Amino acid sequence: MDADIITIGDEILIGQIIDTNSAWIAQKLNAEGINIRQITSISDHPEHIIAALKDSGEKSSLVLITGGLGPTRDDLTKSALCTYFGTHLVENPEVLEHITQLLTPRGISINSLNREQALVPEKATVLHNKLGTAPGLWFSEKGKIYVFMPGVPFEMKYLVDNEVIPRVRKLFNTPVILHRTVLTQGLAESTLAEKIEVWEDNLPESLKLAYLPSPQNVRLRLTARGENEDKLLKLLDQKIKALNELIPENIFGYDDDTMAGNVGKLLYNNGQTLSVAESCTGGNIAHFLTLNPGSSAYFKGGIVAYSNELKVKLLGVNPHLIAENGAVSKEVAEAMALGARQAMNTDYSIATTGIAGPDGGTEEKPVGTIWIAIAGPNTLISKRFTFANNRERTIIRSTQTALNLLRLELLKSSSKGK
Amino acid sequence: MDADIITIGDEILIGQIIDTNSAWIAQKLNAEGINIRQITSISDHPEHIIAALKDSGEKSSLVLITGGLGPTRDDLTKSALCTYFGTHLVENPEVLEHITQLLTPRGISINSLNREQALVPEKATVLHNKLGTAPGLWFSEKGKIYVFMPGVPFEMKYLVDNEVIPRVRKLFNTPVILHRTVLTQGLAESTLAEKIEVWEDNLPESLKLAYLPSPQNVRLRLTARGENEDKLLKLLDQKIKALNELIPENIFGYDDDTMAGNVGKLLYNNGQTLSVAESCTGGNIAHFLTLNPGSSAYFKGGIVAYSNELKVKLLGVNPHLIAENGAVSKEVAEAMALGARQAMNTDYSIATTGIAGPDGGTEEKPVGTIWIAIAGPNTLISKRFTFANNRERTIIRSTQTALNLLRLELLKSSSKGK
Repeated sequence: MDADIITIGDEILIGQIIDTNSAWIAQKLNAEGINIRQITSISDHPEHIIAALKDSGEKSSLVLITGGLGPTRDDLTKSALCTYFGTHLVENPEVLEHITQLLTPRGISINSLNREQALVPEKATVLHNKLGTAPGLWFSEKGKIYVFMPGVPFEMKYLVDNEVIPRVRKLFNTPVILHRTVLTQGLAESTLAEKIEVWEDNLPESLKLAYLPSPQNVRLRLTARGENEDKLLKLLDQKIKALNELIPENIFGYDDDTMAGNVGKLLYNNGQTLSVAESCTGGNIAHFLTLNPGSSAYFKGGIVAYSNELKVKLLGVNPHLIAENGAVSKEVAEAMALGARQAMNTDYSIATTGIAGPDGGTEEKPVGTIWIAIAGPNTLISKRFTFANNRERTIIRSTQTALNLLRLELLKSSSKGK
Repeated sequence: MDADIITIGDEILIGQIIDTNSAWIAQKLNAEGINIRQITSISDHPEHIIAALKDSGEKSSLVLITGGLGPTRDDLTKSALCTYFGTHLVENPEVLEHITQLLTPRGISINSLNREQALVPEKATVLHNKLGTAPGLWFSEKGKIYVFMPGVPFEMKYLVDNEVIPRVRKLFNTPVILHRTVLTQGLAESTLAEKIEVWEDNLPESLKLAYLPSPQNVRLRLTARGENEDKLLKLLDQKIKALNELIPENIFGYDDDTMAGNVGKLLYNNGQTLSVAESCTGGNIAHFLTLNPGSSAYFKGGIVAYSNELKVKLLGVNPHLIAENGAVSKEVAEAMALGARQAMNTDYSIATTGIAGPDGGTEEKPVGTIWIAIAGPNTLISKRFTFANNRERTIIRSTQTALNLLRLELLKSSSKGK
């Protein structure tokens, strides 16, 4: 069964915001076995809205629309809906009551903009939006379903999870589609493709492989389609096991795993703690680690020693090391890691020092040169990397690479302990 | 003049990756006075590609297509192109030579996948992709222009900037469209709308206003359209000046400004330095600050004191303060700020301590409770905030709110000094 997603709003067309809603909705519907045929972003001109509804309604059974509803600009969308579905606006007392209840405790008084949000097309089923003032609208028209939701992500997500998915499950009967994504680090797309070529060529008809490269890693997505969920799951497990034997060091996780999250799990399971000493990554390793709920169980803290003065003062780096080798060097990276481990009293530590750019490079140490060191109970390693001349990407790649180095160390030390 | 953007690839339709390319292209074309009519994401099925090319080619003069070209999956796209444009593939010696030159120094040997990338449709003008192996392809067909580019963002961006925009400028004659975005912090969308209602109602025909809310702020986008660039610029300046008088404390920047970048500029201009002491924000304030090139001129470093032990050891917080008031308190936030300023020897410091969640909340201090403190040469302030129960959003909002508090302090102290 096919679905279309339409996002309404000039902000996407002029590139002011990135459409993250569509990806989120697509994932949710896929998990329900619904295939997304097309995602379309359009302006809020009524004639464009109507043309898009017509096109999607002809080709898909379910059309999900976000945006164009909200306190400041929902008039155009609603009048387009009324034209398309041949209906008119009526005030909905439950919606008005809900808006009042939502805004009053925040000290906001109802204004005419809020009041207009309580006007809904008469033919629509109103979907209760617990988290916001604009309700969702559900239309069933000539065998097709159209669902309108506000564009604010957390309101849209609430509506999809609590109002849309339960209704869709009741209405449609769908095939089994399973996705599994294998997360790899440290291999370029074409090198990876060559390493796994034979494995890939022997995948059965029911499995489809896609390469998804990004600055920090290459993800491999396997899609299984069929009738029997157990059989598909077994097939996926078997193929992924074989893949693991081909590139054991490069696979760091699956699906929604993150490098920082998986490093955290290893530390948590070992009952070990971590600290970081960051120069060029500027706090991003600490940030990635602390995005994970419960990270305080293993992450004690970090020192962002952006200036050399603080490398000496807070991490105990010998100033002669900096004078002799430069701040971006094996010696300083290792001294930072040892200093962090001691200052913050942890089992492991990560240190980074490098030239994120755009300035500061030399011939010997061009922009993108990064030293990463890992210190642990029985280990001190360091490694030099050269990333591209793009500040943000270098910060992200350095972060991921540093965490992967720690991950491999943690795996090594656990297997030694066994 | 209208343009369409088409992105090809299942990874967007199944929600695996977020389409950031389209927003970037849209911004670039807008700056050239080209209006984006529609953005469409489709699968790599040849019939879907052909249908989308047909639809966009009928409605817009320029169609930009990304994705579907790359070492592992460009066959389908290229064969669809050949069908649509009535042409066939030929090996392009320059492209093959470029691929060889690109991969050899990386120690990668040319394989059959790479070699296939040197096959291009005979009718196409090849756009040289300096940064990658897949070339761009430019078709001029029945008065319409179609441009195919790889989906890897930095390769696509290189092609747009260096190959596409210069050609588009030569070919098309376009009206003047100017965008100015006003960045606000600290007001909800509907409150903001009410505060500026009269100003908004008096905007002339040639100006269009849009509200763009996000978790950390509400942006106001003004779009001016006309013939005379100077007149439009003057009109925009005048209206934005009037807006500034209505909400002076809430406007922190314009267009691509970031809160962290603007705080950095103020510090730089004052010749002052900053350090941070982060608990709940976990390194994100340091990360936002160090994303800015040149931040080492004013940002000396930070201490992520995630554990209470490190709040005491590295920031000199009196353990009795933590025992008596809890780590999330006015007293501890202020002690952290004072400790950071002293330990890192800076003019200003920011401290955060809070409950980012999802666990750890109490009735008195629910999840989302954050204390922020700012210490400076003549100032020590602190403020309590309550954000929503969403870990990532709370981290981002705390970061932005803390930086805005510092910004207002910096402005206050500069105006005192005058």
